[in-house]
Amino acid sequence: MGAIDGVNVKGCVELGFEEEPEILAIEEAVRVLLQGVCDDSNREGVRRTPLRVAKALWEGTRGYKQKVKDIVSGALFPEAGLENRAGHAGGTGGLVVVRDLDLFSRCESCLLPFQIKCHVGYVPSGHRVVGLSKLSRVAEVFAKRLQDPQRLANEICEALQHGFGPTGVAVVLQCSHINFPSSESALSDPNHKGWVKMLAKSGTGVFHDGMTDVWTDFLSLLRFRGINVEDAHSSGSDNKSWCPSHACSKTGVPDSAMLRSVASILCSLGEDVPLRKELQETPARFVKWLMSFKDSRLDLKLNGFVQNKRDFRCNDEHLRCEPNLSFWSQCEHHLLPFHGVVHVGYYSSDELNPVQRSVLQSIVHFYGFKLQVQERLTRQIAETVSTFLGEDVMIVVEASHTCMISRGIGKCGSSTATVAVLGRFSMDASARGKFLEIIPDSGAGEG
Amino acid sequence: MGAIDGVNVKGCVELGFEEEPEILAIEEAVRVLLQGVCDDSNREGVRRTPLRVAKALWEGTRGYKQKVKDIVSGALFPEAGLENRAGHAGGTGGLVVVRDLDLFSRCESCLLPFQIKCHVGYVPSGHRVVGLSKLSRVAEVFAKRLQDPQRLANEICEALQHGFGPTGVAVVLQCSHINFPSSESALSDPNHKGWVKMLAKSGTGVFHDGMTDVWTDFLSLLRFRGINVEDAHSSGSDNKSWCPSHACSKTGVPDSAMLRSVASILCSLGEDVPLRKELQETPARFVKWLMSFKDSRLDLKLNGFVQNKRDFRCNDEHLRCEPNLSFWSQCEHHLLPFHGVVHVGYYSSDELNPVQRSVLQSIVHFYGFKLQVQERLTRQIAETVSTFLGEDVMIVVEASHTCMISRGIGKCGSSTATVAVLGRFSMDASARGKFLEIIPDSGAGEG
Repeated sequence: MGAIDGVNVKGCVELGFEEEPEILAIEEAVRVLLQGVCDDSNREGVRRTPLRVAKALWEGTRGYKQKVKDIVSGALFPEAGLENRAGHAGGTGGLVVVRDLDLFSRCESCLLPFQIKCHVGYVPSGHRVVGLSKLSRVAEVFAKRLQDPQRLANEICEALQHGFGPTGVAVVLQCSHINFPSSESALSDPNHKGWVKMLAKSGTGVFHDGMTDVWTDFLSLLRFRGINVEDAHSSGSDNKSWCPSHACSKTGVPDSAMLRSVASILCSLGEDVPLRKELQETPARFVKWLMSFKDSRLDLKLNGFVQNKRDFRCNDEHLRCEPNLSFWSQCEHHLLPFHGVVHVGYYSSDELNPVQRSVLQSIVHFYGFKLQVQERLTRQIAETVSTFLGEDVMIVVEASHTCMISRGIGKCGSSTATVAVLGRFSMDASARGKFLEIIPDSGAGEG
Repeated sequence: MGAIDGVNVKGCVELGFEEEPEILAIEEAVRVLLQGVCDDSNREGVRRTPLRVAKALWEGTRGYKQKVKDIVSGALFPEAGLENRAGHAGGTGGLVVVRDLDLFSRCESCLLPFQIKCHVGYVPSGHRVVGLSKLSRVAEVFAKRLQDPQRLANEICEALQHGFGPTGVAVVLQCSHINFPSSESALSDPNHKGWVKMLAKSGTGVFHDGMTDVWTDFLSLLRFRGINVEDAHSSGSDNKSWCPSHACSKTGVPDSAMLRSVASILCSLGEDVPLRKELQETPARFVKWLMSFKDSRLDLKLNGFVQNKRDFRCNDEHLRCEPNLSFWSQCEHHLLPFHGVVHVGYYSSDELNPVQRSVLQSIVHFYGFKLQVQERLTRQIAETVSTFLGEDVMIVVEASHTCMISRGIGKCGSSTATVAVLGRFSMDASARGKFLEIIPDSGAGEG
């Protein structure tokens, strides 16, 4: 973790780190992007965003600079097999499976991070086993690059096969890619699925053919941990990318300075953009995603709500809850997604009707589709909601932040809740308690 | 992660790292310990163990060299609160809660790692919020020291309070400490609980008093994630350590050279052993734990089983399963615990009776209580079990390795399965499949 901060193993700051030419080049490119999406790129919240983004990108693709040989060398241990009897065990044929390695990678199609549960199996040979942690470290080398699930599985598999020469290696990856709706479809499709899932398998040696008995053994051992490979959507031979940005319409001509900036970032990270066809459209897709959070883009839409606000005002005394309004946003500190749900507490004589609920959802999306921090999002929703649901309003926002997991922090399961309390909710702890009690299970943060 | 390997942010190996005087001193001390516990400390599997242990200890206590000020500075962002209305939101009073931060620490009483789910809440003031990841980074500074749960909670809390001056900070830690049985009690108490759990709470500012409304709000937001603080065993005022090693009998006089080595390690890491009373008995406890895995210690016990082996042999054709025999072991590469369950498949006319099952469990403990690697453990159990359950034996060992989670690898949920197949299990894939199918859910790796 020290590496990201420029803090070395002794806890000292590596002073030169932020002045590395590659970091400076990426930082400059991110500054161009930020100017395109943000009305005031000098305000304090985003002033150092280019440096933060540059460090996160650099750290998240450090695999380009790592060599498998350096990791595996010295990590092979002599280990006896069976002697004088039929069978397989230990250093001659005893299947080894490591399950549920949490990895993060960056999608080569859109540059957003994706989550991976990685499972590795291998069959030792020549009376040698490899240190278990090396399977994880080698997988990490290839995850920390711009990737596609199948290519990642193949690269991990081949690197382990060539790295220490076992009888065979099998890799199964369960990948989840965030599936951002556009600001329009977020509202029109309330059942929008927030994740695209994909399964990738790869095998070398005795695992080369996917139908062998040893694959069956491996998959049975995954099933012990609830990993059911047969049920999952698997990558076919159709060669179509899994990235949801491929399905987006190509409307609008992105700013060419922004496109050039993304292309230059890819080169700084170590990719050969002109030669890799998978990367040709990546700058356009990333800029399109980024621009969907542009400050001014949605202003007109809110005007519609504000005009109607008086129609919805109620003054009755019943505590009500509108839970689980989904939101999508972008962390202004790291230009990374965060998303989750908003719970609204208020007082009214009746439950909201569907039209009123959709107005709430629109307010949530309006403040979501911006460069944001969760604390501000929470306050802004509270202020606007109170203009038409009354002065007594409580807002709880629950989110999982990609910036907490895809950077060096590595806190996979963490989630953040923020609260705003207006009117009587700020004075009356029992009202807060009652509201928090009646919110149904949100499932926020589920990958 | 780079830091542990001596790999810096550019992916280059920091060449001087392994020659640092502190690392060399710890390495030398670990060499003394290894000689005490291992008959041949020059064999290839353990030859570089002193260096690996030194690096892991150094990395696992890097918090001694880190300053909270360096982390928090530059991470405070201006954030508006509510204007002209009653309530709390954003930078003036909007409660922020980050849940489920996975941390690892080292127990000050016994030096073994313990797991932590950390939950932090704070109330911003002065129109300022802190970058969310800093809550995690600050917690990490204190987790990476020799700790006790309550002290850890207090230190995180106070560091955040002083670091950026909010209205108040609350910290809740759910801690799990591995509870190693002695080799004797492992056999006599089949219901031995593998974990000691403890809850620690700390609060500053508005959270100083544990019964305030804001604590109620915070705990309600934890309950959303299934964290039920009221139910958990909480640290009382009785000042008794939670570490299970305190309950162990103090039999035997540990080797004084080994004791001196552990004390010197503590000093190298940055602790003041003579001054900190909690550390007075730590060397004795650690040496006692280490020595329970001494190669030769249990030899006599197995002789008993081997003499009886012919009584148990069967040649019937029914596939049987003896699942979930627990084991406890020590990774010889890192001198860290690994533990889990062993499943035994065999052919017999009858199920084993309780005595026979206890013999299996004894064999598992015999090979567990050694410096081990999981692949060897699996093979050794297979070989010995086959001498009295027949030539057709299949062994599956499922384990979670502390060395995969407490070092820089950081793979919290990962688990490892290893397989040995003898006789017909090695030829007959359907026999293997049937055995793997009938093994009931093991719950291995549960923290």
